Amino acid sequence: MSGTVAVVGGGIIGLAVAWRLQQGGADVVVLDDGEPGAWHVAAGMLAPGAEAAHEEPHLAELLARSNERWPAFAAELGLVGYDDTGTLSVAMTADDLAEAARVWTRQQLPLLRPSELREREPVLSTRVRAGVYAPGEGQVDPRRVVAALRERLAGRIVTKRVDDLSEVDAETVVVAAGCGTAALTGLPVRPVKGQVLRLRGEPGLVRHVLEAVVDGRHVYVVPRADGEIVVGASQEERTDRTVTAGGVHELLRAALELVPDLAECELVETTVGHRPGTPDNAPLLGRIDDRTVVAAGHFRNGVLLAPITAELITGLVLGGDADPLLDHFAPGRF
Amino acid sequence: MSGTVAVVGGGIIGLAVAWRLQQGGADVVVLDDGEPGAWHVAAGMLAPGAEAAHEEPHLAELLARSNERWPAFAAELGLVGYDDTGTLSVAMTADDLAEAARVWTRQQLPLLRPSELREREPVLSTRVRAGVYAPGEGQVDPRRVVAALRERLAGRIVTKRVDDLSEVDAETVVVAAGCGTAALTGLPVRPVKGQVLRLRGEPGLVRHVLEAVVDGRHVYVVPRADGEIVVGASQEERTDRTVTAGGVHELLRAALELVPDLAECELVETTVGHRPGTPDNAPLLGRIDDRTVVAAGHFRNGVLLAPITAELITGLVLGGDADPLLDHFAPGRF
Repeated sequence: MSGTVAVVGGGIIGLAVAWRLQQGGADVVVLDDGEPGAWHVAAGMLAPGAEAAHEEPHLAELLARSNERWPAFAAELGLVGYDDTGTLSVAMTADDLAEAARVWTRQQLPLLRPSELREREPVLSTRVRAGVYAPGEGQVDPRRVVAALRERLAGRIVTKRVDDLSEVDAETVVVAAGCGTAALTGLPVRPVKGQVLRLRGEPGLVRHVLEAVVDGRHVYVVPRADGEIVVGASQEERTDRTVTAGGVHELLRAALELVPDLAECELVETTVGHRPGTPDNAPLLGRIDDRTVVAAGHFRNGVLLAPITAELITGLVLGGDADPLLDHFAPGRF
Repeated sequence: MSGTVAVVGGGIIGLAVAWRLQQGGADVVVLDDGEPGAWHVAAGMLAPGAEAAHEEPHLAELLARSNERWPAFAAELGLVGYDDTGTLSVAMTADDLAEAARVWTRQQLPLLRPSELREREPVLSTRVRAGVYAPGEGQVDPRRVVAALRERLAGRIVTKRVDDLSEVDAETVVVAAGCGTAALTGLPVRPVKGQVLRLRGEPGLVRHVLEAVVDGRHVYVVPRADGEIVVGASQEERTDRTVTAGGVHELLRAALELVPDLAECELVETTVGHRPGTPDNAPLLGRIDDRTVVAAGHFRNGVLLAPITAELITGLVLGGDADPLLDHFAPGRF
């Protein structure tokens, strides 16, 4: 089919790419197997200062550029839970502080005392030892983002499982299949299991996105305006979809240590997703042959990286011009 | 309607009573509101040596007599998961041991060392300090019991919510409405909330019913032959039906401390039920007026007490002869 673009994968990356392609005038179709992807489980933290970024300047640039685009991207989609109240990153024990401080120092954020932290966020445990406030790090609700993107692409999404790219009848194929990208392309994308909980409490109980190291365990608490509170996430090199007693226990333990008042919240949902990891956990963005472009392997940053990924891939497909930043994320780099 | 018996409440007590009444020749109908009762959540431990029994000799007798009836009762119903492997009751800390030992001494069960306990039950934590083996305490699956009773009473169960006993057209009315008995009769039955988890693991992972005090918290772990493992239960003087983050966390914490291998089990279900408590937490069994008999308020022992309750109430309704034991459970005793 001449002139058409098929996007394989209807997750947050595939839909964002398809939407921008459509806006750019492409005749686009999204092929999706109907299984909810990592976006369904993701908390939607927009954390460009994530640890990995500090060791990878190009990834840091990609994350920062995408974060800058989020306010406009969200506004265009109807807000979708975008919230830039900022993130409090805290540590509980001396060991936790030592681990967290390494990142905070690089972020050049001033260390806050427990009293300052609890002034910002009164529900924090009295055990919290120190922390920082990252005003530039917000959140969005990935389920609302996907719902809004699907609406924009109404009539362009086909429920169809693609097992081989040769089945796809289109001039250009964009593979945005998350963990499924490995089987379709042979590229090194591996699933990294994450267990995530959703609680429900009084809206406003928790004010900020909280990111913490609690007795050696990383945990985040992401409060939505409607009272939903997302708690995540385990990080396991496993492919199964089992919600385990141990996984749920570890998340609850860390979250309740951090915010004791969460104990009274309803436990609404226990879910499992798989992040698409790569050997360096940076995404795979670019052409792999004349017809095929890849946009996959976003690991923990799929939601944050959706706007910049959509922009760069659209530029590549429609304009043929590759942003120099893409060189660092070439799918064939391993 | 002359000669008929209406049982109000289709939980495990109501159904057992109706079944025995039917076997005794009564023209019986069960009126049930269709909401699953405490049986749906209950683990089905058959523990006649429960703590309360020691302080109440009549309750102890009632529990013991019902426990004796369970093997035949279960066999008549098609086994329904009846298992008399016995219960291991264990304590983790010195404080836990002090609390548990009070009960064990009265039960006159020999104290087992950790090595003896782990020989019986290899998955027990190495932290277990002491315990006893109660060979007479087994389990049954309450959901299977209710399903089997419903089958026996096919055509006799009407889905109907009863708000006032005057609506019920029958010669005799047996009120077996659990927590709902208070509103129907004015008797002091209060709901005691319990949160219960269901895990799934390899069949045979845990061999015995485990009953434990873990860092001051009571927990039980009830393994079924098919791999289901019931973990319970919180005990809260609350009427809400909310599964809370704190409730689930406390159960998982205690269960995983007791049997670390449970961490890998799937968390399948989180549920809430309400035990029908009474001022002395012993059941209300007997006539309250010429037409009305009560069989309610079984608190934590509804499953265990179903066979003896059915027998005593049937004798009362059909034969008119009250077993002398009933005197101690008269509904009007408060």
